[in-house]
Amino acid sequence: MNHGPRRAAAGVFTANRVKAAPVVWSEQVLRGGQVTAVVLNSGGANACTGPAGYEDTRATAEKAAAALDGHRADQVAVASTGLIGTRLPMDKLLPGVEAAARALSEDGGEQAAVAIKTTDSVHKTAVAEGEGWTVGGMAKGAGMLAPGLATMLAVLTTDADLPAADLDRALRAATRVTFDRVDSDGCMSTNDTVLLLASGASGVTPGYEEFAEAVRTVCDDLARQLVGDAEGASKDIRIDVVHAATEDDAVEAGRSIARNNLLKCAIHGEDPNWGRVLSAIGTTSAAFEPDRLNVAINGVWVCKDGAIGVDRASVDMRGREVVITADLAAGTASATLWTNDLTSAYVHENSAYAS
Amino acid sequence: MNHGPRRAAAGVFTANRVKAAPVVWSEQVLRGGQVTAVVLNSGGANACTGPAGYEDTRATAEKAAAALDGHRADQVAVASTGLIGTRLPMDKLLPGVEAAARALSEDGGEQAAVAIKTTDSVHKTAVAEGEGWTVGGMAKGAGMLAPGLATMLAVLTTDADLPAADLDRALRAATRVTFDRVDSDGCMSTNDTVLLLASGASGVTPGYEEFAEAVRTVCDDLARQLVGDAEGASKDIRIDVVHAATEDDAVEAGRSIARNNLLKCAIHGEDPNWGRVLSAIGTTSAAFEPDRLNVAINGVWVCKDGAIGVDRASVDMRGREVVITADLAAGTASATLWTNDLTSAYVHENSAYAS
Repeated sequence: MNHGPRRAAAGVFTANRVKAAPVVWSEQVLRGGQVTAVVLNSGGANACTGPAGYEDTRATAEKAAAALDGHRADQVAVASTGLIGTRLPMDKLLPGVEAAARALSEDGGEQAAVAIKTTDSVHKTAVAEGEGWTVGGMAKGAGMLAPGLATMLAVLTTDADLPAADLDRALRAATRVTFDRVDSDGCMSTNDTVLLLASGASGVTPGYEEFAEAVRTVCDDLARQLVGDAEGASKDIRIDVVHAATEDDAVEAGRSIARNNLLKCAIHGEDPNWGRVLSAIGTTSAAFEPDRLNVAINGVWVCKDGAIGVDRASVDMRGREVVITADLAAGTASATLWTNDLTSAYVHENSAYAS
Repeated sequence: MNHGPRRAAAGVFTANRVKAAPVVWSEQVLRGGQVTAVVLNSGGANACTGPAGYEDTRATAEKAAAALDGHRADQVAVASTGLIGTRLPMDKLLPGVEAAARALSEDGGEQAAVAIKTTDSVHKTAVAEGEGWTVGGMAKGAGMLAPGLATMLAVLTTDADLPAADLDRALRAATRVTFDRVDSDGCMSTNDTVLLLASGASGVTPGYEEFAEAVRTVCDDLARQLVGDAEGASKDIRIDVVHAATEDDAVEAGRSIARNNLLKCAIHGEDPNWGRVLSAIGTTSAAFEPDRLNVAINGVWVCKDGAIGVDRASVDMRGREVVITADLAAGTASATLWTNDLTSAYVHENSAYAS
């Protein structure tokens, strides 16, 4: 809940064209640029539930507005995570909204971060401080969490005083280079939601660039925590694409590498299989010449000019973090993406459940 | 080896921009429209091996041409499969080419099909008969085979008498709807090769449509065998996309479903998780309305109009083959794609090896 005095807000939602009811609802709420409260639930995504599911989301917002008297339901955002294609148990959820409203506290940030955990092993929070103002955030999820719960939900708050348009611009700029570049398993959720609420309580209006940098810092911190806590994963893989012709090229190449199942298996086996990196780059439309590509794994240039470089035996892959550097030798743009390895634990968690 | 009298040939190769040396070589050979012999090796892909690797392929073709005296090296196609980024052991390979040339036999088709196996559990051949002519084929591989050996190699032969241009047209039409629609793990090899050699020995020139149909039948049969023999897989998944606006839309939606790791895990667990099908479709640019999508799993319409349909508990997924029908409700085009489930065995085979 945002106690004000301002209630400006911005939101970024999944690009999946199949959107959960709470995403459709919250997108409408955000169009007004004002959010007084956010209700988050886990256990059910309320996706692919038809008009009835949408009414469940509306009832959730109305219940929250009533419980926080004097507030409008169309300024209550809703975020859900869990199984797709099942209705929410509204007989449990609505009393839960009332209980949560009664338990609201200014010191409740940590508790909220714990409460939104699903199969997360730790809760995730981050903070960035400005001159007299602060941006804080909490998040749950990431691909490779329990099945159907792969959704990423994040809520950022600040006591800075900025209009909704500035919040929106800062949040979009931040998510584009942070959450959007975490690609655990290539699967895009129907429910991904990132919200930013500004109370203005500090009375300070920071410069836009300074504020945007703080939002980016918090998003980056949370995104990195999501990768590090991806269940079933044994490696965090950082992919630096450098010397690309454009940033789009760098992201396309990085995403193709991040989604290559054979490479993700190889890294799980601590095998510096650079051929799979080239093979992944080769499926993209990025500008490059195959015989000018270079690849380093943990700093060792195992591929030079598209062919065999330094002996792969000299690569040490025992640490949890593995860094792949892909040099497209085509320009000056770059991008960093994060993914995880593909493990038997991932398969187990995503097959041994439901029905 | 093609004993003639004609030596017309066609080839279709990987669309990966990082191409193995034998692919670059064989593409040049095929530009001449004539192939007298094909040399296949496993153990090394000869990909990302630079100019030296290309010379190894040339030496292989020259050795074969010399061993089959009177033939030209630039009419010898070469296909390789195995680890990327290591040089071929030419001291073993060249004597092997001579030994293979000495062992050539008109009854050797079966032996050849066995010889090109890598981790295939069975060899794969297929035949289609015309009036006085025949098309035969053999293949190895498919995604989910041993790591780095995911390459698919296929050689078709016919005694029909057709010009190279007709062979090319028939082969491209066939691979587009068969091999190109098998997507075991979304990884595109640097070495995929499908060749069609015509000897004209029957003296019969069939009508183009009749011949193209026979080529398609052989490719379809081999592609289906590749899916069925994918190591590490426990399910063969057939994806029928129907009522798409265009065939391209149907293929795009089908491929997105085929590549969804969460869905592939769910099917491994015999979980009819239709939400993941919708979630996969939602990431495409195909024409559809989310609230008009229908999905059947093994014939049970578990999703109607983008929401909950028939009870998922009534889906029987115990068989090896699982059929997913995705109805985009947007037109009259359709496409069928094949994939496999994602299993711990897949992870194991693709991580516990090399280095």
